[in-house]
Amino acid sequence: MTSQHPVSSAQRVHIALGERSYEIVIGSGVLDAEASYGGLPRAAHAMIVTNPVVASLYGEVLAQALKGHYPLVHTVVLPDGEAHKTWESLNLIFDALLSNGCDRNTVLFALGGGVVGDMTGFAAASYMRGVPFVQVPTTLLAQVDSSVGGKTAINHPLGKNMIGAFYQPHRVLCDLDVINSLPGRELSAGLAEVIKYGPIADAAFLDWMEANLDALIARDPAALAFAVRRSCEIKAQVVSQDERESGVRAILNFGHTFGHAIEAGMGYGAWLHGEAVGCGMVMAARLSVALGLVDQTFVERLRRLVERAGLPVVAPVLDAQDNVGRYMALMRVDKKAEAGAIRFVVIDSVGHALVRSAPDEMVADVINVSCQV
Amino acid sequence: MTSQHPVSSAQRVHIALGERSYEIVIGSGVLDAEASYGGLPRAAHAMIVTNPVVASLYGEVLAQALKGHYPLVHTVVLPDGEAHKTWESLNLIFDALLSNGCDRNTVLFALGGGVVGDMTGFAAASYMRGVPFVQVPTTLLAQVDSSVGGKTAINHPLGKNMIGAFYQPHRVLCDLDVINSLPGRELSAGLAEVIKYGPIADAAFLDWMEANLDALIARDPAALAFAVRRSCEIKAQVVSQDERESGVRAILNFGHTFGHAIEAGMGYGAWLHGEAVGCGMVMAARLSVALGLVDQTFVERLRRLVERAGLPVVAPVLDAQDNVGRYMALMRVDKKAEAGAIRFVVIDSVGHALVRSAPDEMVADVINVSCQV
Repeated sequence: MTSQHPVSSAQRVHIALGERSYEIVIGSGVLDAEASYGGLPRAAHAMIVTNPVVASLYGEVLAQALKGHYPLVHTVVLPDGEAHKTWESLNLIFDALLSNGCDRNTVLFALGGGVVGDMTGFAAASYMRGVPFVQVPTTLLAQVDSSVGGKTAINHPLGKNMIGAFYQPHRVLCDLDVINSLPGRELSAGLAEVIKYGPIADAAFLDWMEANLDALIARDPAALAFAVRRSCEIKAQVVSQDERESGVRAILNFGHTFGHAIEAGMGYGAWLHGEAVGCGMVMAARLSVALGLVDQTFVERLRRLVERAGLPVVAPVLDAQDNVGRYMALMRVDKKAEAGAIRFVVIDSVGHALVRSAPDEMVADVINVSCQV
Repeated sequence: MTSQHPVSSAQRVHIALGERSYEIVIGSGVLDAEASYGGLPRAAHAMIVTNPVVASLYGEVLAQALKGHYPLVHTVVLPDGEAHKTWESLNLIFDALLSNGCDRNTVLFALGGGVVGDMTGFAAASYMRGVPFVQVPTTLLAQVDSSVGGKTAINHPLGKNMIGAFYQPHRVLCDLDVINSLPGRELSAGLAEVIKYGPIADAAFLDWMEANLDALIARDPAALAFAVRRSCEIKAQVVSQDERESGVRAILNFGHTFGHAIEAGMGYGAWLHGEAVGCGMVMAARLSVALGLVDQTFVERLRRLVERAGLPVVAPVLDAQDNVGRYMALMRVDKKAEAGAIRFVVIDSVGHALVRSAPDEMVADVINVSCQV
């Protein structure tokens, strides 16, 4: 991969978190630009964590770039997919670190999508009680959401992302060129998280998305650059206000309570995370209407946009006997739940979200309608 | 267990860490005193984590005390011993939390020694990315060292405490009555960490230990109360200066570099942690002499005190063919090692420690002498 654009065109979004502040570098050719790596912590060892597909595409580019900065550059390749976001995969990182004699200055580089980023981040948080790490997201979804903000985790058989840490990276490197190699299904999954930012935080960005969705699907570089930057800016604002999700940060989970139930109920990996979130946002929009917060036109508007992005808008039946009961049981183990009460992110006007509980019958109606539409 | 002393006699040592500050409550009858639990975070669920022996001695007392504060009190019993400080045991805590529907307000109580405390702390750090926890140490070693300061971890086959977090408890409850139920070998192991504080930070406390060791072995309540309080005060001072061990905190590892090699080389659990640290301190004292920092009388003084405490002072042979090589290899994976160089805590005057590397031949001499004395 060669830089078609000078790296000076890269843009930087600052995440203001005091001594844990860092920058997101966004642009073409970021991965092999010298400027991307200046000022990172020095160390004897760097460790690239990636998966087989990404390793074959970008592993060598990153390793070459890092060799100018770190005497020893190692790579560990994890099995791909949400179903492998487990302790067993995490332990492959620890095995590689220890067997290579990596000390507690070692810098980890998460080269991949959300699964690689979440696991590498948790490994960095836990190895010798904490080493630095850098996110190098290679999917649109990871660039606009999971690589930013310091949420790291692995799954447990009883729930998604149940074991993890809030642990901030030292930098996020978003190379827009990698989006060209994404399968269409993954591009769509990433667009779900981009769509999310309008309803929760910026009505004008929702308008922009409606006007530019075709350009994004066509991978227009200027449109992608703006979508990634604006998404990161909004996420940066929210995370800077509430790093550990004790309040406002929860709005970033719009669509995720229903979405997590879909992912867990279908078996991790059957639906991509972004697909489940896309459908989950439509469900959460319906719940917002049922709670009297917005009107039905918002549901239609969001449903149409999600559908245009190539994402599912009809919810799956998770249990032929007791579909509502299954959804409810899965949502009760959501991390936002408190003392058994499910907490939903709902929209009370386009560009503003809040967290609310809702009567079980109302939620049941939303599930029933969403599985049939 | 009933309180023989009014709880008002309990003393409190403050750990100053900004918003992560907390108190160590030290005294007789702390475990079933109402005042011990006031002001802790409220929650629907509390989870006691303990081991079979401690559960039978104190599990019911703690559960009863907690029932006045938390609607639901659960208990999970882990297998006992350093050999079980593994991911498998840690996962038993996560299984219990998730299968009981514990939300992210749940408060964990670590009722046991260092193994239970380290695992419960790491579970609290990681469950839903962090829930509150309270240390209730039931060994002398845990009361004076491992329960204070927020170091949590599990072991990896390639190294001790390699996977963990810096995560502070909300409170530490040190009930001195529990020391009466300790086997003599565990009392001795705890005394190793008490002895440690004199050489590294307080020459007068080393004098006091020499004068009062017999009283401590005889479990004299007043002597134990002072030893625990003074140890916690010194640890509190050091930790407040350097929470994440980027500098001065490393002095708390006096004796631990050699000690960890002994523990790992003998197989976790063969020597108690305190036994390995006791012997390791004598080795580190010899290295301090070899580096020209203190004179031989200090080694003799420390060796005699460690021996009087009932601890081993002759180092074990870890490999009949290449004993020095085995020690060196084990010490190179110590977390203090940087780029392959082993870092030792040494004493440069009684009451003051620093971190230094040393020539391999010098370290080899210390190992050889220490295995033969």
